[in-house]
Amino acid sequence: MKIALDAVGGDHFPHHPVEGAIQAANERPDLHILLAGPGKLVEEELKKQNFSGSNISVVDAPDIIRMDDSPAMAVKTKTNSSIAVGLGMHAKGHCDAFISAGNTGALLAASAFILGRLPGVMRPTIASNFPTINGVRLMVDVGANIEVKPEMLYQFGIMGSVFAQRMLGVENPRIGLVNVGEEEEKGDETIRKAHELLRKSPFFIGNIEGRDILSGKADVFVCDGFVGNVLLKFGESIPDALMHIVKKVIVKRGLDREQIELISGVLREAFAPFDYQLVGGVPFLGVNGVSLVGHGGSTPMAVKNMIFMAEKMVREKVNSTITTSLN
Amino acid sequence: MKIALDAVGGDHFPHHPVEGAIQAANERPDLHILLAGPGKLVEEELKKQNFSGSNISVVDAPDIIRMDDSPAMAVKTKTNSSIAVGLGMHAKGHCDAFISAGNTGALLAASAFILGRLPGVMRPTIASNFPTINGVRLMVDVGANIEVKPEMLYQFGIMGSVFAQRMLGVENPRIGLVNVGEEEEKGDETIRKAHELLRKSPFFIGNIEGRDILSGKADVFVCDGFVGNVLLKFGESIPDALMHIVKKVIVKRGLDREQIELISGVLREAFAPFDYQLVGGVPFLGVNGVSLVGHGGSTPMAVKNMIFMAEKMVREKVNSTITTSLN
Repeated sequence: MKIALDAVGGDHFPHHPVEGAIQAANERPDLHILLAGPGKLVEEELKKQNFSGSNISVVDAPDIIRMDDSPAMAVKTKTNSSIAVGLGMHAKGHCDAFISAGNTGALLAASAFILGRLPGVMRPTIASNFPTINGVRLMVDVGANIEVKPEMLYQFGIMGSVFAQRMLGVENPRIGLVNVGEEEEKGDETIRKAHELLRKSPFFIGNIEGRDILSGKADVFVCDGFVGNVLLKFGESIPDALMHIVKKVIVKRGLDREQIELISGVLREAFAPFDYQLVGGVPFLGVNGVSLVGHGGSTPMAVKNMIFMAEKMVREKVNSTITTSLN
Repeated sequence: MKIALDAVGGDHFPHHPVEGAIQAANERPDLHILLAGPGKLVEEELKKQNFSGSNISVVDAPDIIRMDDSPAMAVKTKTNSSIAVGLGMHAKGHCDAFISAGNTGALLAASAFILGRLPGVMRPTIASNFPTINGVRLMVDVGANIEVKPEMLYQFGIMGSVFAQRMLGVENPRIGLVNVGEEEEKGDETIRKAHELLRKSPFFIGNIEGRDILSGKADVFVCDGFVGNVLLKFGESIPDALMHIVKKVIVKRGLDREQIELISGVLREAFAPFDYQLVGGVPFLGVNGVSLVGHGGSTPMAVKNMIFMAEKMVREKVNSTITTSLN
């Protein structure tokens, strides 16, 4: 299997992407990794990091799309970027997946444009892992579609449930529609119609409320990209906020070193599911290919896990299952 | 000052409302509390709880609006409910505020209908305290208006900032517009127009993201009632979810009794700001009167704190300041 990786995506390129690629290549000799980026820069980084294997190749892509570039402009003007070249290779069948820790907006736009949509899909979506007390579950959409139609929410639910089955190992993924109340008449017209459409799925459990997310009442949380984006970032902020408040209490109580270490250790372990590094990246669902985007700050471990996640998405035939489920 | 209290609101009536009224009446002999509810029921409860003071009166209101009654129907048909009678007295100037731990939807509808709106207000809103690492701040709207216009979001910001100044003691309340990114072009057209309108306020700090809420980047978080409702309930679920995860870690590590008590104690104290009891209730802002609704499960202490909050809203002239700020 060939997986293309953006060598100049994220806040720490080329160091982190290249190191992540080397880790993945060493762990899985059966994978071949294509590093897309300015040829010389990437070759030098590989040398610097002493890679001696044969399962990483460099694909020259001189343009660099920056994190703060306007997505639409970047995709239009930087036609030789790592993103355009990597996705172009994927579209032509020269590799099985494309991964980047770069500009999410540009990646979404380029993925939709270059790969196209799966048959029947209205709009590609970004699905993200979301930590709950029952482990990591899925939220769809988390920012790709700020304005939605009922049919889109329906499709988010179906695509999310396929992903949960294949990738998270949830046999019967409960689909919950995020709403302001459990009663079916709650919400605006879009939400109410989406509720009606989702009834077609045997996995739909109805509306869920804000309090039902962390408690893991559903396995797939369906919402528009505005709500999902705000919730995802809110959720990511919990560990730091709580550590801050706990520190204040520790200082106030004058706890000793041993007590502080005990509390920090327990909280660190409790917060582990909130660590995006373990997750790797989030998929664009609905595009005709496997395209993942990672956190801008992705560490080499996060990059490595993204590569493995992409490999699994290909192996588990997520896309053909989505197509069957929607049509 | 006279404050009317719904004696049959919430999950524990008449016990909790009456006990809360007695606590408030004993603590503040300068307040006069009017208990609205079925006369005999309330009189008996007062006797049962041995109230011997003179600053509580009973106002007979035989109809009871239940927590699961349809708001519109309840307001239309139960014209002698504690809610209709209490708000009616307030509208006629026979008391200075009305408080209930009852059916939020019915209270909002009845408050808007019976009290009317303050001059210039498009739509009344529900503002709620929201815990942050800098203490309790304000979120507006948290469920009254699922669909909004830009002008409504603007007014939520202004009304919220007045409340934050007068009630939370924040001299220069930073107004943040909840959005999917900091850049002003983010969000849909409604949000972008609201952003433009909010620039009129010297307190507006621009867009904030989901991660900026718990970290207290703003003092007033402006959003539509859908987003606010989901966020509020999500936030309320954090303590339980975290305690659940921490317990798992404690069991896994086989901690001893002393260690468990230390951790629980620290976390309980850290989570104290998330306790709705201390807050009391949330106000309907924009109505021509002081109307507060409390959590259905309100304890006597929560009821007492709601009474004091209403008293402060009257004393601090929140409504006349809102009117001045909007016109």
